[in-house]
Amino acid sequence: MPLRTALTEKLGISRPILLAPMDLIADARLVRAVSDAGGFGILGGGYGNRTWLAQEAAKLEGLPVPFGIGFITWSLAKQPDLLDVALAARPAAIMLSFGDPARFAPAIKQAGSLLICQVQDEAMAEQAIAAGANILVAQGTEAGGHGASRTTLDIVPAIVDLAAGRVPVAAAGGLADGRGLAAMLMLGVDGVLLGTRFYASREANGADEAKRRICAAKAGETVRGILFDLSRNNVWPAPFTGRCLVNDHARRWMGREVELLQQVENVSADYVKARTEGNFDIAAVIAGEAVGLIHDVAPAAEIVARIVDEAEQILQGRRNSSAVFAKQ
Amino acid sequence: MPLRTALTEKLGISRPILLAPMDLIADARLVRAVSDAGGFGILGGGYGNRTWLAQEAAKLEGLPVPFGIGFITWSLAKQPDLLDVALAARPAAIMLSFGDPARFAPAIKQAGSLLICQVQDEAMAEQAIAAGANILVAQGTEAGGHGASRTTLDIVPAIVDLAAGRVPVAAAGGLADGRGLAAMLMLGVDGVLLGTRFYASREANGADEAKRRICAAKAGETVRGILFDLSRNNVWPAPFTGRCLVNDHARRWMGREVELLQQVENVSADYVKARTEGNFDIAAVIAGEAVGLIHDVAPAAEIVARIVDEAEQILQGRRNSSAVFAKQ
Repeated sequence: MPLRTALTEKLGISRPILLAPMDLIADARLVRAVSDAGGFGILGGGYGNRTWLAQEAAKLEGLPVPFGIGFITWSLAKQPDLLDVALAARPAAIMLSFGDPARFAPAIKQAGSLLICQVQDEAMAEQAIAAGANILVAQGTEAGGHGASRTTLDIVPAIVDLAAGRVPVAAAGGLADGRGLAAMLMLGVDGVLLGTRFYASREANGADEAKRRICAAKAGETVRGILFDLSRNNVWPAPFTGRCLVNDHARRWMGREVELLQQVENVSADYVKARTEGNFDIAAVIAGEAVGLIHDVAPAAEIVARIVDEAEQILQGRRNSSAVFAKQ
Repeated sequence: MPLRTALTEKLGISRPILLAPMDLIADARLVRAVSDAGGFGILGGGYGNRTWLAQEAAKLEGLPVPFGIGFITWSLAKQPDLLDVALAARPAAIMLSFGDPARFAPAIKQAGSLLICQVQDEAMAEQAIAAGANILVAQGTEAGGHGASRTTLDIVPAIVDLAAGRVPVAAAGGLADGRGLAAMLMLGVDGVLLGTRFYASREANGADEAKRRICAAKAGETVRGILFDLSRNNVWPAPFTGRCLVNDHARRWMGREVELLQQVENVSADYVKARTEGNFDIAAVIAGEAVGLIHDVAPAAEIVARIVDEAEQILQGRRNSSAVFAKQ
């Protein structure tokens, strides 16, 4: 009993669940697992590691199910030919986040791919639609990794209203279960994009310890800011900041970003070392506010099925025990 | 075709919509309008102006529909006998927000009123349940006025899970229409509490210019912080901050709170003058992120009816045009 929406129709999928293109974490294996399960896997092209991208894209070429490839737009602008590497794999869609998509849109359209644009405010949404976006993802501040400050409950209806009659919208940020999917459908979106929930999947290309920490983290144990970006000498353009699990490093530096910058050489040396060693007391586990809803590392297909099943039960009134329609 | 929930049953109302007890704004007239419309009006006892409270509570005594009276808990603790003034009006419930409700719970129960506690995190929720709360309101950072930092989409499922099988939960923060009500029901709550939406009502005891600004404000044009509290010498205990419309005063002082404190005598003198004169370029219009969803000053009864009607249409699949259950 699939949930059909304008988004599932457009992407040729059977379940309105998109995999966030988490840099390196969303590799070909995870993309394939999500797409095989009826969702839409999107490869995490991220900052654009050419070797990795070519290798993972090649694994996806010719897949019998639709998939996408995602980039950080401002980073792709530094190596624009990576788009050709991606398009060579014949993805159903390219997803661009964080920057003006206009210069990349023509090549994407010409290759026969759809353009998915993730946006954090109304101006970005208008820019994306003007560039020819076929689908928008409205991302709230609850999201893991990079994003901005408006909340999902604020930005989603705003983008739905703005895009009405033009392009379908998916919601992102703070979503990890069927309740979240059902709630977002009520706000008028046609699907959801999930990152952290799929990070804690068997197939995700992440450290076991990072996955363990996501499962252990309680609601409220993430923080959005720039201290992790500062610590790895990776300063993003405004208005973007990053959300990660609160760990020892975050507790040490939150609110002391200026001091961190003053000591950045030492801090970043320690940070690089911690990443290499997989020391997540210092290195970031990039995760969103939905961690409180995530308690296990499951196969991606099971995650997709669970979310859709739960949403269907809720939408059909079989789960939301107390709210009752009393027909009079 | 009313929406019945555990909350409507408990409060003896027909529509799962609660009026936030906005200090002075939610006066007896607005409370009555919301309760007459089948919702649950809650008088804004706020900081506890004894004369105003006695006068407004007297107007509510003997009302044929259930109503509540709300207080700022830490402020009530300074004038605890105000609770007796409130209970004398025989409210169906007392709502306490921002502080430990334990010392007030026995008198509330003894008077035969229910105890509604608004909470912003799990520890406050446990404290409230331990004190004997009958209903919890999980308030997200999107809310207007005082609140904390967790988003509605984060805190609501967390409190629903925590309270499951113990007390019903209402959601607050960023909600102003039927989409929001429907979405929150999907997350498992039994109702919603709305402030800003009712501020922009005919009956609300607020300045016309404040209501006009709420209707004119776009999504994203509010800010949470302490600069307005600093400006009126009204510093709240942590972790509470306030959300207001962004105005000239906010633009001037955002991020410069230390400097504001250094000049607080002049700033507060100007601020008091602005409040007296109704100059909302300086004085705060206390409002939440839902301003983007509010476009008119309507009668409270119409607001209640509209929200419920819209939610019902969405829940029955008559409005959410593209999401379709394809039964196979």
